[in-house]
Amino acid sequence: MPELRFDPIQQRWVIISTERGRRPSDFHQPTEHSKGSFCPFCEGNETTTPSEIYAIRDNGTSPNEPGWKVRVVPNKFPALKIEGNIERIGEGMYDKMNGIGAHEVIIETPDHDIQLHELEHDHLTDVLRTYRLRLKDLMLDDRLRYVLIFRNHGVVAGASLAHPHTQIIATPITPKTVALEFESALAHYSLKERCLFCDVIRQELEDGRRVVYNKDDFIAFTPFASRFPFEVWIMPKEHSFDYSQSEDGLIESFAKAVKEVLARLNASLENPPYNYILHTGPNINAKPVRPGHWGSIKYDFHWHLEIIPRLTRIAGFEWGSGFYINPVQPEESAKFLREVEL
Amino acid sequence: MPELRFDPIQQRWVIISTERGRRPSDFHQPTEHSKGSFCPFCEGNETTTPSEIYAIRDNGTSPNEPGWKVRVVPNKFPALKIEGNIERIGEGMYDKMNGIGAHEVIIETPDHDIQLHELEHDHLTDVLRTYRLRLKDLMLDDRLRYVLIFRNHGVVAGASLAHPHTQIIATPITPKTVALEFESALAHYSLKERCLFCDVIRQELEDGRRVVYNKDDFIAFTPFASRFPFEVWIMPKEHSFDYSQSEDGLIESFAKAVKEVLARLNASLENPPYNYILHTGPNINAKPVRPGHWGSIKYDFHWHLEIIPRLTRIAGFEWGSGFYINPVQPEESAKFLREVEL
Repeated sequence: MPELRFDPIQQRWVIISTERGRRPSDFHQPTEHSKGSFCPFCEGNETTTPSEIYAIRDNGTSPNEPGWKVRVVPNKFPALKIEGNIERIGEGMYDKMNGIGAHEVIIETPDHDIQLHELEHDHLTDVLRTYRLRLKDLMLDDRLRYVLIFRNHGVVAGASLAHPHTQIIATPITPKTVALEFESALAHYSLKERCLFCDVIRQELEDGRRVVYNKDDFIAFTPFASRFPFEVWIMPKEHSFDYSQSEDGLIESFAKAVKEVLARLNASLENPPYNYILHTGPNINAKPVRPGHWGSIKYDFHWHLEIIPRLTRIAGFEWGSGFYINPVQPEESAKFLREVEL
Repeated sequence: MPELRFDPIQQRWVIISTERGRRPSDFHQPTEHSKGSFCPFCEGNETTTPSEIYAIRDNGTSPNEPGWKVRVVPNKFPALKIEGNIERIGEGMYDKMNGIGAHEVIIETPDHDIQLHELEHDHLTDVLRTYRLRLKDLMLDDRLRYVLIFRNHGVVAGASLAHPHTQIIATPITPKTVALEFESALAHYSLKERCLFCDVIRQELEDGRRVVYNKDDFIAFTPFASRFPFEVWIMPKEHSFDYSQSEDGLIESFAKAVKEVLARLNASLENPPYNYILHTGPNINAKPVRPGHWGSIKYDFHWHLEIIPRLTRIAGFEWGSGFYINPVQPEESAKFLREVEL
């Protein structure tokens, strides 16, 4: 059983995973995906993954058989496990809990070699609708405080399989980074009765220098204090706190934004490794730490997608300080991305 | 001039460095150091670095000439610059300040190919005494709130030059990660009138399962909630909040601990890439945010060295959550490190 442990000095939880027991010699890092090796996510290999949770399929095909367009399966080596009750245990001055949670994989297409932004608009919309569906379903579980959806592209960005896929990890604690965003948003709202993100969007639209995309319902921009070169955040322009409550029209419009922004990154940086992370609201069905804890979240939080190209290495300074050195002005990054030919 | 910018959503500062203007095509990452290329840190090439700040030299040799054992120079491409006054400026809802600070390099040895733990005890002690000397000197500057000393070993860990060296970045803000450790320590002390770190050390010594080294004045252990496989923290067993005030005897004892722990990591993991970071107290000479802000820091903070082998890749989950998945139990990591033959 995996275990969650809390560090009293750095005030963060960590997942101690026991699923893939490793010895020192197991840590040789590959630098690229091996070509031609067996892929459990390819069509025809459905029985090599755990049994599917959901799929968009051709009529008449059965689960765990070919004929699907998008397929969701449990992770074969889950960081957290769904069975059991949450137990919080002290160990001297330390804290731990058993590793309850969910770890799923969304296989985005049967095509091993395609990139996400190359999918047809309708197909990409199906993938992003699947995000909504899994979020809604996992948020019914009142043990799970947060559902994090993220995507790793390229070996350097931590993708262990090349086949296009997104991952979902649902956790019994609110992750630190997300909790901090909730707190910033709440503090701003408490003071001003305005959404922090809506204010950021207004300033970015007025300024314009950091805008990469501005069509229909979405804006994409390089944040004023970007940690990384070519970092881009995509946000719905209208206030919207919970991705799982998005209407179909909004998701279609989101698919257009994701497709174009990823295409611009790809064209500018020649297929860069990247991570993207969806930051949506907390699971408001979760048993709260205290009643009313998330009372104002509808008004103060605002969902968004953070895209981080992995072009620079994180070194001692960043680890030691939580402070980043970005060698490219965000305004320059935005200009390149706006002007690149698609 | 570099610029510091603050992100109102993630509440962190970032350094926007303009020193190395880069275009999208400049981001191809090497996977290993090129052999035989020109090294500005080697003996004989002293004039290719900025003029030296300090050196331990043979009698009769002059600055910026051969004959040194340890040499400190300004970074040629500094992330921050020492000249000027700090100006804090708002830009709509954003905050920025000019990039005042210091960025230095400690060249640890003229020998290009040696590793830090292979240095003679006296030589390593000289390196660690140089840390103290530069800390003391930089802490005289009341614009600088914090002095961070860190070391990158190996390309994967972000070392751009193979020649053994440590870096120092002094900043006009207290970095987020360090500030959080100060806050944890203060909260613990306020409640218990005991040092948080002293309590951790006591529990680790009693438990023993995570101890890697325990000799003279130092303990090294894999933290209970280690983020990474084989992560090791080294701490003085007696309470000590400020590295710059360490006595010679303590630094000699620290050199022994650093040498043995790095040798154990090297033997277990075959020359792993790693980062290490010294977390010492704040610059108590800095103009405080408010008077008395660091009043109790002497009693509550405790300096330590955090060593992070870079064996696993940081992916979307970690970026998006601030939550880490460690595939090796800290107790297992400690056992390997204790038992490996040196």
